[in-house]
Amino acid sequence: MLVAFSITPLGTGDSVADLVAECVRIVRASGLPNETNSMFTNIEGEWDEVMPVLRACTELVGREAGRASVVVKIDYRPGVPDDRMQAKVRAVEERLA
Amino acid sequence: MLVAFSITPLGTGDSVADLVAECVRIVRASGLPNETNSMFTNIEGEWDEVMPVLRACTELVGREAGRASVVVKIDYRPGVPDDRMQAKVRAVEERLA
Amino acid sequence: MLVAFSITPLGTGDSVADLVAECVRIVRASGLPNETNSMFTNIEGEWDEVMPVLRACTELVGREAGRASVVVKIDYRPGVPDDRMQAKVRAVEERLA
Amino acid sequence: MLVAFSITPLGTGDSVADLVAECVRIVRASGLPNETNSMFTNIEGEWDEVMPVLRACTELVGREAGRASVVVKIDYRPGVPDDRMQAKVRAVEERLA
Repeated sequence: MLVAFSITPLGTGDSVADLVAECVRIVRASGLPNETNSMFTNIEGEWDEVMPVLRACTELVGREAGRASVVVKIDYRPGVPDDRMQAKVRAVEERLA
Repeated sequence: MLVAFSITPLGTGDSVADLVAECVRIVRASGLPNETNSMFTNIEGEWDEVMPVLRACTELVGREAGRASVVVKIDYRPGVPDDRMQAKVRAVEERLA
Repeated sequence: MLVAFSITPLGTGDSVADLVAECVRIVRASGLPNETNSMFTNIEGEWDEVMPVLRACTELVGREAGRASVVVKIDYRPGVPDDRMQAKVRAVEERLA
Repeated sequence: MLVAFSITPLGTGDSVADLVAECVRIVRASGLPNETNSMFTNIEGEWDEVMPVLRACTELVGREAGRASVVVKIDYRPGVPDDRMQAKVRAVEERLA
């Protein structure tokens, strides 16, 4: 499955970037395919692979900031080959070429 | 933590309500505080309580429809008393009274 | 269309409820069907009716807190009768009765 | 402001990519800074610039598929310089370097 998530720490002023960087570090350490853009971090894997990463990030921000608002979008499609993080974008670009 | 989620089956035509009803049945069987409105189902509990429910719903819809788009919002606030599903709404209503 | 939205002020500490209450006041003053639960405020209307309300709330929180994180989910279904805020929940409950 | 959005057509089977491509075409024709990844399309601009684009995409999918489920996340931060689509990612990468 593909998962996009964004974690907003509450009550820490505007300097959100330090906590976001800590989360991205956790995501990259997972070894799963991932990508961070200006609004979400995308990560690809099975439920048991992705959810512990999301949990670690949520608990980190909750611990540091006291409260975390997390938005998650899951594209769940069993039986489809991996590498959908690239394949979905390619499918769109091919139609626009 | 408080979790709001919505699962959209893809590729099943407009009759989404049957699958939504199955998910609500799973949520209610969990015994956790929950509430279904026109856009999301809210559920309150610890990570280990809520996430298996979300997973069961996602897998059900993925199995039946082939693909599921899931949107989740988590309000994670460790150390705060339970019953936030009611308390948050009360806090707003008191300010508007 | 049906719209669920949630606005999180950044950088204001934990006392989010005052700003949320101001937003709910704006929503209710719109006269559109609406409902506030523990995670989202739902509102029903046409694009030109709902979006100015969402904008007023976003700008209010941006002005007061300096930064606002807004999550919106839209169920857009042209040509379907109004009162979907009630009808969708009824359709699920009937299946569970 | 920065806006991430994703539009899911309901009732059209799995071939979502054609409609997504049409939306990306609309986004690119707007001339606003934008980027499409595997889960969301990000776009940067003022409310009056971004929202008509989002509306055009929503109405297109609603017209073609009959129903559209739209997820939007807005990072609203008045008074901050443009080019946040790049700057936010740079701020994270610098902390991880």
